[in-house]
Amino acid sequence: MQDFSFYNPTRIEFGAGKIATIGQLVPAKVKVMVLFGGESALRNGTIDEVTTALGDREVQLFGGIEPNPSFETLMEAVQMVREQNIEYLLAVGGGSVIDGTKFVAAAALYEGDAWDILLQGGQNITRALPFGSVLTLPATGSEMNKGSVITRKSLAAKLPFMSEHVYPVFSILDPVKTYTLPTRQIANGVVDAFMHVIEQYLTYPANAPVQDRFAEGLLQTLIEIGPNALAEPEDYQTRASLMWTATLALNGLIGAGVPQDWATHMLGHELTALHGLDHAQTLAIILPEMLRQRKATKLGKLVQYAERVWHIRDGSDDEKAEAAIEHTRNFFESVGVKTRLSDYELGAEHIDAIINSLEAHGMVALGEHGDVTPEHCRQILLASL
Amino acid sequence: MQDFSFYNPTRIEFGAGKIATIGQLVPAKVKVMVLFGGESALRNGTIDEVTTALGDREVQLFGGIEPNPSFETLMEAVQMVREQNIEYLLAVGGGSVIDGTKFVAAAALYEGDAWDILLQGGQNITRALPFGSVLTLPATGSEMNKGSVITRKSLAAKLPFMSEHVYPVFSILDPVKTYTLPTRQIANGVVDAFMHVIEQYLTYPANAPVQDRFAEGLLQTLIEIGPNALAEPEDYQTRASLMWTATLALNGLIGAGVPQDWATHMLGHELTALHGLDHAQTLAIILPEMLRQRKATKLGKLVQYAERVWHIRDGSDDEKAEAAIEHTRNFFESVGVKTRLSDYELGAEHIDAIINSLEAHGMVALGEHGDVTPEHCRQILLASL
Repeated sequence: MQDFSFYNPTRIEFGAGKIATIGQLVPAKVKVMVLFGGESALRNGTIDEVTTALGDREVQLFGGIEPNPSFETLMEAVQMVREQNIEYLLAVGGGSVIDGTKFVAAAALYEGDAWDILLQGGQNITRALPFGSVLTLPATGSEMNKGSVITRKSLAAKLPFMSEHVYPVFSILDPVKTYTLPTRQIANGVVDAFMHVIEQYLTYPANAPVQDRFAEGLLQTLIEIGPNALAEPEDYQTRASLMWTATLALNGLIGAGVPQDWATHMLGHELTALHGLDHAQTLAIILPEMLRQRKATKLGKLVQYAERVWHIRDGSDDEKAEAAIEHTRNFFESVGVKTRLSDYELGAEHIDAIINSLEAHGMVALGEHGDVTPEHCRQILLASL
Repeated sequence: MQDFSFYNPTRIEFGAGKIATIGQLVPAKVKVMVLFGGESALRNGTIDEVTTALGDREVQLFGGIEPNPSFETLMEAVQMVREQNIEYLLAVGGGSVIDGTKFVAAAALYEGDAWDILLQGGQNITRALPFGSVLTLPATGSEMNKGSVITRKSLAAKLPFMSEHVYPVFSILDPVKTYTLPTRQIANGVVDAFMHVIEQYLTYPANAPVQDRFAEGLLQTLIEIGPNALAEPEDYQTRASLMWTATLALNGLIGAGVPQDWATHMLGHELTALHGLDHAQTLAIILPEMLRQRKATKLGKLVQYAERVWHIRDGSDDEKAEAAIEHTRNFFESVGVKTRLSDYELGAEHIDAIINSLEAHGMVALGEHGDVTPEHCRQILLASL
């Protein structure tokens, strides 16, 4: 096990109807901004539920936060927060709304150009407005972590930041809120959560048996519940497990004390920035060929993954690894997320621009060993056509 | 999955030499009391390391906190805290010292009779002094939870309390600090941690696949590392896994959203109170026959436990359950913790007094269904002779 620091003060309120507890969780008499994405949060009544739970607190709504939340939109919220002396934020939505709210929370109190927060990865954040979240889409884990990814449309840049100051004070996880989500978003959520675990698990053996078992437990759970999460939208128990699994996949716990990869994510971000693919789609495309490309350095963990997660017992180590990679691809396809660039009408002619973008963003030494180069990424994309 | 609230703000600093980080974790210029148990903490240099890390802060030592920490001793610390205007506490030791420090932290700021804290189970705590811990003995999980058990010798009473105000602000987990522990304490720690998981896992199926997988992962890890933790005291990686496993066994995570048992603990407390057995010894005696006694209501989980933790594939459900119970007993014996009352020179003639004591403490409806009676406990003890 590697040395680590672990800290996660977010309070989770899990269960049907837990939105009603917001009244106790938010301080009395504060001026609250409720941030959300599309009109669906208004139409399906969730915003009403939230404002009712907030009682007589003064509430300002801010809608329109996009998937891949944009700096441009969020700066409008920042301005409104400042002008109206908002004291508390409440994100109602999925990872994009929560990521965006983290940025607003930090930027509202940041003196200087708020884009610097992204340029410095959050290290310059010394304080932030307190905020809670009501999660409606299980996927990113943003409801219980300190990370955020923001896109600046004018620069075609998608950058992450992290800070302990942007842990949500609380997050409400009500599985019922997921019932009305489109199938595609649930499928993306399954793949997102799966990939978050993979990035922290599928590296090299590091004498961390608990972290390995926890990661394998999350992966096995996603494999078990994924199909039913799609087929039976109102199966409370399945949606509950999906929600809690997605949160635990990226709340810092399984990554504490182990090496981490994240190369697939970094390459995937470029695909989203340039071609607008869903985040999960990019991961589903890249991962299989990323694993094949890096089979030699990942072999120990690939075999463990094959045996423990996919119950593959027969064959050589290489055969087990290959079988695990194919099982992974098939799992993504089985929940309806396509795994080839061509499925998204992208071809070899698009690869140069993706690689140039990767280099421009300094992503030239990726992965747990820092040995994944742009040339490797080119080969991975070629193999993913 | 059942509804749940989860909140755990304790910061963990894990690794060799992490005591040096205390200087950054404790606020500057506060007056600190360092609480510890026996002389060993002084002799082995840990207290010196801690005071060095505290730099020029004013430090008051308070030693002599017993195993099963006593109200009487702790009230001396409370008095000293008040007289000297101590602002921050630092526990250096195992679960007893940390439990005791939690009580001092709450009692020092409590107006009224501090024993009321125990009588009300901590519900009357509204604030507490901040404190950190340096863990030297992996076992109880107190370093990352909000619980504490205090004994009042004059009343022969051992009572628990819980409060969010007594989460440690931080805990230092340095596996090297466990190298010099007596074998018996490590063995007890393995059994303690194992039992903490069992009490939160081996109940009835509750649609909580993640909690189950996490619990099974902790149990499997303890089974894998237990023998080596005893045989190779200076194997850093083994001790590191033991330490992190014991913390995760009772930090609230695996118990969130699932039914819990704790009957074995309640009966075990009477054995400790009356006959002075180590806590872990009492659990190792009681669990196997507790499981046999309750096989019918626990059968679903017993079979899952047999299959996933002990890899028992053959036989009927009853045979799998029986085999798992015997594997459990053998595991406790294999780490040197005996599993029969007669191993501790206790016989049938002692049982009446134990059952009377259990009834006197109101422990008449134990377990996840509240259906374990004193008569069941009598049968369990008779079967454990």
